[in-house]
Amino acid sequence: MTDAKPLAPAIEKRVMDSFERQGLMKHLGATLSHLEAGKAVVRMPYREELTQQHGFFHAGGTTAICDAAGGYAALSMFPADSSILTVEFKINLLAPALGDYLEAIGKVVRAGRTLTVCQVEVFGVAREERTLVALGQQTLIRLDGASDGPKRD
Amino acid sequence: MTDAKPLAPAIEKRVMDSFERQGLMKHLGATLSHLEAGKAVVRMPYREELTQQHGFFHAGGTTAICDAAGGYAALSMFPADSSILTVEFKINLLAPALGDYLEAIGKVVRAGRTLTVCQVEVFGVAREERTLVALGQQTLIRLDGASDGPKRD
Amino acid sequence: MTDAKPLAPAIEKRVMDSFERQGLMKHLGATLSHLEAGKAVVRMPYREELTQQHGFFHAGGTTAICDAAGGYAALSMFPADSSILTVEFKINLLAPALGDYLEAIGKVVRAGRTLTVCQVEVFGVAREERTLVALGQQTLIRLDGASDGPKRD
Amino acid sequence: MTDAKPLAPAIEKRVMDSFERQGLMKHLGATLSHLEAGKAVVRMPYREELTQQHGFFHAGGTTAICDAAGGYAALSMFPADSSILTVEFKINLLAPALGDYLEAIGKVVRAGRTLTVCQVEVFGVAREERTLVALGQQTLIRLDGASDGPKRD
Repeated sequence: MTDAKPLAPAIEKRVMDSFERQGLMKHLGATLSHLEAGKAVVRMPYREELTQQHGFFHAGGTTAICDAAGGYAALSMFPADSSILTVEFKINLLAPALGDYLEAIGKVVRAGRTLTVCQVEVFGVAREERTLVALGQQTLIRLDGASDGPKRD
Repeated sequence: MTDAKPLAPAIEKRVMDSFERQGLMKHLGATLSHLEAGKAVVRMPYREELTQQHGFFHAGGTTAICDAAGGYAALSMFPADSSILTVEFKINLLAPALGDYLEAIGKVVRAGRTLTVCQVEVFGVAREERTLVALGQQTLIRLDGASDGPKRD
Repeated sequence: MTDAKPLAPAIEKRVMDSFERQGLMKHLGATLSHLEAGKAVVRMPYREELTQQHGFFHAGGTTAICDAAGGYAALSMFPADSSILTVEFKINLLAPALGDYLEAIGKVVRAGRTLTVCQVEVFGVAREERTLVALGQQTLIRLDGASDGPKRD
Repeated sequence: MTDAKPLAPAIEKRVMDSFERQGLMKHLGATLSHLEAGKAVVRMPYREELTQQHGFFHAGGTTAICDAAGGYAALSMFPADSSILTVEFKINLLAPALGDYLEAIGKVVRAGRTLTVCQVEVFGVAREERTLVALGQQTLIRLDGASDGPKRD
């Protein structure tokens, strides 16, 4: 990819460590599959524990990885002593969430001193096709002097 | 409660059965703790598997029960041969989601022939206090002739 | 009203002055009809200049007073040297916006040091009935040391 | 433009006529400056009547053209006997809305039988620069057998 903006190893490690500490991502079987400056991709393979009443991926899981992809896209752009919290987000569920896995691609639209806005696309990926299943728009707040460590400062 | 609108047993059973089929709610340890016409309450006790990087409840879990509470509030108002899908929702995360459990209270604001709109409040409940941690607004679509059963019709 | 929280005259004057400076509110014929701490009401009488293609109030006017009602509800709670900007909002249009006038009622749900969240209801008011036509949820940011005066500091 | 999808003259005329009937667009001085299948551009030149308290474009005007651009992008894709109503939308205000004019670009993300989802970008355009000032995500409902004429059927 010509437009990828690779991260400094220290920043990448910091973001990856933060993701690892998210008990929910582990519980859902989600992984941070790609990371560059201002962009993060989170994958979540299908399993029965993630379904809603019709057997599709539950909107709650779809939104969980949507939120995480936007949050880590944002965190990738900030210094080591800062942290990110989601202020709010909106998600449209466009199609039944089906596939071997879901992939949420979060991109920073505007990174401000205090607030950052991301767009997130979620795709259902099966062997032969890739379907846009959800679209999100998210606002995050940057907390300085509060490293994204295991305890809240 | 004087303003509760009790449900017919058949509708209550149908809604409860639908909730039971949601693999994700079981996986998150969430239960449908109260149901009346146009209102549903979903509880989710704290456990490490539900956390984000600071040890709070992850926004993904908060939104999962937010979505479920609104969805079942809506489903409680519709006939047996209809189903409900979330079209979109927006959630504001107002305070760190802490407590012994989270409780999402979904209420129908407007139930239309096709679209239904709900508001959802999520509280963090600890022994001594109850804090509003999230506020959601949700749009759902009713599918007639598609009972909320195990397969999509 | 027993639960009204009257404002200090200096704060009320500051909020009213800010509203007066909004060219758009004047252009739409909207007025700030009620103000108390954490709550603001904006009214907009019907006129042809405010319509959409079917002759109802246009969603753009509905959202304009929705945004203003939330913003002034928030501003009513802050000190004189602070200003408020809307970060984002979401609105559901629940019913055709009809009536002699629209009335937007904004209420602060959470007032934080940096961010404030409001809920706004918009009613269509005719002689004999009052219909909820829109429901909004809004996030605002407080700017300190930037009085809400005619120029941006 | 290589990827423009020109409209049949009858559809273009129908969409233009609908825009002309919107009293609010005329009152705000907004025009439908470009239209193709699934995309619409609405422009609104600066004037004092459109301002908020600091002299920028008021968020209410920004959202009015945001809503219109999405709505007409959607309407461009539907048959002559159908109409479109906005169900809900969410907008992030990313930067102060300044410029000689604002330009809202609405694009259909998913056109369904009942519901259509659009994304809308709003730019502030000055002689020398073009700034993204707002980003919206919108849900619309298609009404069949209800031509977008002067009266509601």
